[in-house]
Amino acid sequence: MGLGRRRGLDGHVSRRGRAKLFKAMTSTIERVDHTSMANAIRALAMDAVEAAGSGHPGMPMGAADMATVLFTKVMKFDPKEPHWPDRDRFVLSAGHGSMLLYALLHLLGYEGMPIEEIRNFRQWGSKTPGHPEVNHTPGVETTTGPLGQGLATAVGMAMAERSLNATFGDDIVDHHTYVIASDGDLMEGISHEAISLAGHLKLNRLIVLFDDNEISIDGPISLSESGDQIARFEAAGWDTVRVDGHDPDAILDALEAAKRSDRPSLIACRTIIGYGAPKKQGTSGAHGAALGAEEIAATREALGWPHEPFEIPTDIRDAWRIAGLRSGQARRAWEKNLAELDREARAEFERRIRGDVTVALAPAIAEHKRLLAETKPKVATRKASQDVLEAINPVLPETIGGSADLTGSNNTKTKGLEVYDAGNYGGRFVHYGIREHGMAAAMNGMALHGGVIPYSGTFLVFSDYCRPAIRLSAIMARRVIYVLTHDSIGLGEDGPTHQPVEHLAALRAMPNLQVFRPADATETAECWQLALETKDRPSAIALTRQNLRTLRTTYEEQNLCARGAYEIAPAAGDARVTIFASGSEVEIGVDAANELQKRGIATRVVSVPSFELFFAQSKEYQRSLTEGCEVRVGIEAAVEMGWRRLIGEDGIFIGMTDFGQSAPYQTLYEKFGITAQAVVEAVEARLSEKRSEEE
Amino acid sequence: MGLGRRRGLDGHVSRRGRAKLFKAMTSTIERVDHTSMANAIRALAMDAVEAAGSGHPGMPMGAADMATVLFTKVMKFDPKEPHWPDRDRFVLSAGHGSMLLYALLHLLGYEGMPIEEIRNFRQWGSKTPGHPEVNHTPGVETTTGPLGQGLATAVGMAMAERSLNATFGDDIVDHHTYVIASDGDLMEGISHEAISLAGHLKLNRLIVLFDDNEISIDGPISLSESGDQIARFEAAGWDTVRVDGHDPDAILDALEAAKRSDRPSLIACRTIIGYGAPKKQGTSGAHGAALGAEEIAATREALGWPHEPFEIPTDIRDAWRIAGLRSGQARRAWEKNLAELDREARAEFERRIRGDVTVALAPAIAEHKRLLAETKPKVATRKASQDVLEAINPVLPETIGGSADLTGSNNTKTKGLEVYDAGNYGGRFVHYGIREHGMAAAMNGMALHGGVIPYSGTFLVFSDYCRPAIRLSAIMARRVIYVLTHDSIGLGEDGPTHQPVEHLAALRAMPNLQVFRPADATETAECWQLALETKDRPSAIALTRQNLRTLRTTYEEQNLCARGAYEIAPAAGDARVTIFASGSEVEIGVDAANELQKRGIATRVVSVPSFELFFAQSKEYQRSLTEGCEVRVGIEAAVEMGWRRLIGEDGIFIGMTDFGQSAPYQTLYEKFGITAQAVVEAVEARLSEKRSEEE
Repeated sequence: MGLGRRRGLDGHVSRRGRAKLFKAMTSTIERVDHTSMANAIRALAMDAVEAAGSGHPGMPMGAADMATVLFTKVMKFDPKEPHWPDRDRFVLSAGHGSMLLYALLHLLGYEGMPIEEIRNFRQWGSKTPGHPEVNHTPGVETTTGPLGQGLATAVGMAMAERSLNATFGDDIVDHHTYVIASDGDLMEGISHEAISLAGHLKLNRLIVLFDDNEISIDGPISLSESGDQIARFEAAGWDTVRVDGHDPDAILDALEAAKRSDRPSLIACRTIIGYGAPKKQGTSGAHGAALGAEEIAATREALGWPHEPFEIPTDIRDAWRIAGLRSGQARRAWEKNLAELDREARAEFERRIRGDVTVALAPAIAEHKRLLAETKPKVATRKASQDVLEAINPVLPETIGGSADLTGSNNTKTKGLEVYDAGNYGGRFVHYGIREHGMAAAMNGMALHGGVIPYSGTFLVFSDYCRPAIRLSAIMARRVIYVLTHDSIGLGEDGPTHQPVEHLAALRAMPNLQVFRPADATETAECWQLALETKDRPSAIALTRQNLRTLRTTYEEQNLCARGAYEIAPAAGDARVTIFASGSEVEIGVDAANELQKRGIATRVVSVPSFELFFAQSKEYQRSLTEGCEVRVGIEAAVEMGWRRLIGEDGIFIGMTDFGQSAPYQTLYEKFGITAQAVVEAVEARLSEKRSEEE
Repeated sequence: MGLGRRRGLDGHVSRRGRAKLFKAMTSTIERVDHTSMANAIRALAMDAVEAAGSGHPGMPMGAADMATVLFTKVMKFDPKEPHWPDRDRFVLSAGHGSMLLYALLHLLGYEGMPIEEIRNFRQWGSKTPGHPEVNHTPGVETTTGPLGQGLATAVGMAMAERSLNATFGDDIVDHHTYVIASDGDLMEGISHEAISLAGHLKLNRLIVLFDDNEISIDGPISLSESGDQIARFEAAGWDTVRVDGHDPDAILDALEAAKRSDRPSLIACRTIIGYGAPKKQGTSGAHGAALGAEEIAATREALGWPHEPFEIPTDIRDAWRIAGLRSGQARRAWEKNLAELDREARAEFERRIRGDVTVALAPAIAEHKRLLAETKPKVATRKASQDVLEAINPVLPETIGGSADLTGSNNTKTKGLEVYDAGNYGGRFVHYGIREHGMAAAMNGMALHGGVIPYSGTFLVFSDYCRPAIRLSAIMARRVIYVLTHDSIGLGEDGPTHQPVEHLAALRAMPNLQVFRPADATETAECWQLALETKDRPSAIALTRQNLRTLRTTYEEQNLCARGAYEIAPAAGDARVTIFASGSEVEIGVDAANELQKRGIATRVVSVPSFELFFAQSKEYQRSLTEGCEVRVGIEAAVEMGWRRLIGEDGIFIGMTDFGQSAPYQTLYEKFGITAQAVVEAVEARLSEKRSEEE
């Protein structure tokens, strides 16, 4: 009897009926052997890649055994409730092996994953893109493909799990994060940051299966690798074991031992890439291309899999479906636990999982803005950021802050935030170490896990070090907040290696990332509010090292930064000039405007805290800021790229054209000509040019 | 007698006189003890930081002992000839400790490093910027500061050394690369890539001194690190030893043992940060700020250093100068060896060191272009790149190619290139493994070392993984060639994680980087020529996975790409429309122009292989490409950022606004509206808008 006919029973039968059903299920699983279930994955993988004419059959065929053990014997999850909060997380770090995951999701009976999706592998609009994409395919926990990211993201998931466990207890949050990683994942530098961090934090809920197939694209791994992965993970404080990756009992034993460990675990599974393909297995020929009709036929024979492409025999399908249904038990037990929580705790847990901010947040920020309007502090925006965080963190208990060893420079640690470490998972501040990339990926993992809001700091120039992870924040549309201080030549003496000049442009180029560059303390507060209240986009907040005066001197209830750009200083009369500027350069714009107005040239200053939000405004609003102007100016202590959309081809841009230099920052602004005087001179020169053209 | 008075003797005395002089020198060195020499570094470091009011005294004070041993007892170099090719290389990976290096260079008597430069630490125009900068300060081998880069760059230096040794022999090339690295260097992910690669390649000329002071900015390293560095380096195939970093004999023994090893060596030196500062030593308080007058006074006392700031007693100064002069011996011996080389080999060595390309290069490329004009191949530009490399590599023996495990995809390996590995340093193709960042930094090291021209490949999207190293290529103005294939949605099924959309903009934003995106095989050849012939800039060449037809159908001797943008298809009559496009989108532009011209709209197509080179042309030339046009169009399968400078605010941009998707590439171009038809429609709509506005 096909399982299809039994669907829907789950949850609608008596306890005794359920017990009977599970007994029947278990006997079905036992009747179908492990190898047949694993071969179903292998067959789907090779057939899907063959149909697509491209893809990666070797990895799924090699890793089918470990995946089968993991999903049928170890993990808890529920295909009917893919987002059940206390599920185990699975991360296919070797994302090119996407067919492994799609085959699993299909076989386990995830909604929206019928066989048609497998047939449409890598086609427009399918649920089965080339690499796994979260948001897009139910059951996919994170977008993977860029190597190393999955492993590092999983570290963040495991961190979030322990954090929520510390808050809500074992009955509500108590799960594992499993990773399948490849040679490539472990060669990437980010893997070092991830495993050191996980070892340091003793994340024993993190279990990595290393698909140790000794093959990379170029050929045998020995072409480029002579290291000892086991020794390396041990050096980072992990438990390790090596097993035959095609021996299900050994894999199961290793997984069970790993679950008992007090440290993160690496299970190195020696596998054969393309397992079952007589000619291509064990070679790079199985890695990244369809096997071809002949080899597929031979593989069917070798595996004893006589079925048609995309055909799964009923008993094997049933065995998989039952494995999928089995987890319903764990979920039901958990739901009982949740129901038993007191009302307040339950509401808080559910709010956190929904990702809504607390109702106390907006008033706290409003209050802070009122205070700023009164006190008009002259502070660096990095300090202003800390000040608003002092208001935010007490009313938003789900924030987890951190820094890549620049805590005192990034100003991300507020009073009363305890350190998150192996002795205190209830802490809310992470010393990530000098691991920007691992930090960013961990934040992605936390945001994906849900229940926490990660923010963390480094210098803006080092956004380059974590750019691949920032890109994934953006692709995955997750609320990850990057605090990027020391945002220009304004950092002074540390010189060109530390002075970002192209980074604002490079970040603004990235789709779906909100890049903020506030001009004073009030704008800093508003940008933080926008970053926190936007559930589905990451934000980068660029902040100064040097002090800036308060430009927003009166309290405005409205979040003016929400428009991306707005008039911060009106012209005296009809504006002939509009000066656009961001961050620390807005005060230069204001000074220039004052001087121009003294000279009879009415000038408006527009602060531009966010290009993205401004370009999303109506054309009318955008135009209103330059209406009637003869000259547009842009000021930013950075390269011009991106500014022409604001100031036009003929606009005057005052900024950087090359890398910076080492000197006190006032000298640098002077030497590089980013001063109010330079603006005034350029505007006057342009106006007189225009006059002489007209004459 | 101060050594100053003896200056200039070097090389002007008889052999016997020299022997006598060296004997006198040696006795001076022996009279002045190690500790006094090391304390000179400590004093200069703390005084310079104090004078600047910012900087990092702790590292130089802690590492002074190891540096003193290294520079006085081990390394070969010549302060009078800082660029002597067979010198040992020294890399201060912990670049924030720049005062260590500046103190050494000053004390050793490097030209251009008088005490005034030390007094002007971190000031505008000084030779002593916040972090060491190659090109800027004699004796600085590489720009460091961004952590991990120095170590990874040193790997490339050691690779280049072995490569040249294989070609020119032990008499001409036989030196070591020494690194001082910090905890931070070893936490960064790039360190993993670097040490795995070095271990794999058995680079026994690479010796790393780990300044193991157990302190990072946030505090004790235990806040964020629990790993075992010794075990980790051993896992990567290194020799390791731990010593007391304040015991000069132990350091010397370890260095001598390391020089005998058949593997790269790590010497973990346990040091005390800020050694000598009674209150701040051993704490993060000594790391990144001036010690303050009181602590400096106490340090003077503790070290037994009663001298005024910036004052070095004559005997200590002499001892250092003598250590500097001593190396002249090694250089003279080497010069004799060079003189004994046969004329041809010597000329070749000198050409390579100058960085001039061979005279055979230009004719080989011209010949290749002639062939292309005849055969008009329809190939992917990545394949066209391989084809031109087949012409280049035989006539340019200093190229060292490679790939980050994408050899068959990047098409960087040409016929007859042997693999560079531990068994064959004469090979010219490096299997870098899945280590983009380590690869890029290694290329920087090779280019800095000189004598070789490195080029290597990965996917364009993974330029993010090596961006910090690309930035250093650009800052350091070195000829490093990045082959970046799969340059748009044109890669198809691999989907958004692999499809660059923002990377061209992000790379173009970087000062001093040449970004090329050729449109066909001929442009590919021309871009390669420009990349190779530009000695002082790195290049990124973006190449397609998909086939493109030949657009340059006639042979032109001139390198048309040198202008950055040029008319590739003239308008039939006076152009009303100019279409700018790059790479794979140029053929879309040509098709659109043909269709528009059929409809009576004269249209010019401009290919834009390089924004940077185009914007460097005269305004007249730039304007000539749009003269008389009513409509400008830009086509690039990427985000718009940067294009407004070409097409103006009102120009039509046909490209991407978000991340890509997984599907066959033809479908993607269609779905994302990057087609000739879309261009034609947009142009017609714009022209009719204009007409109705005029009416």
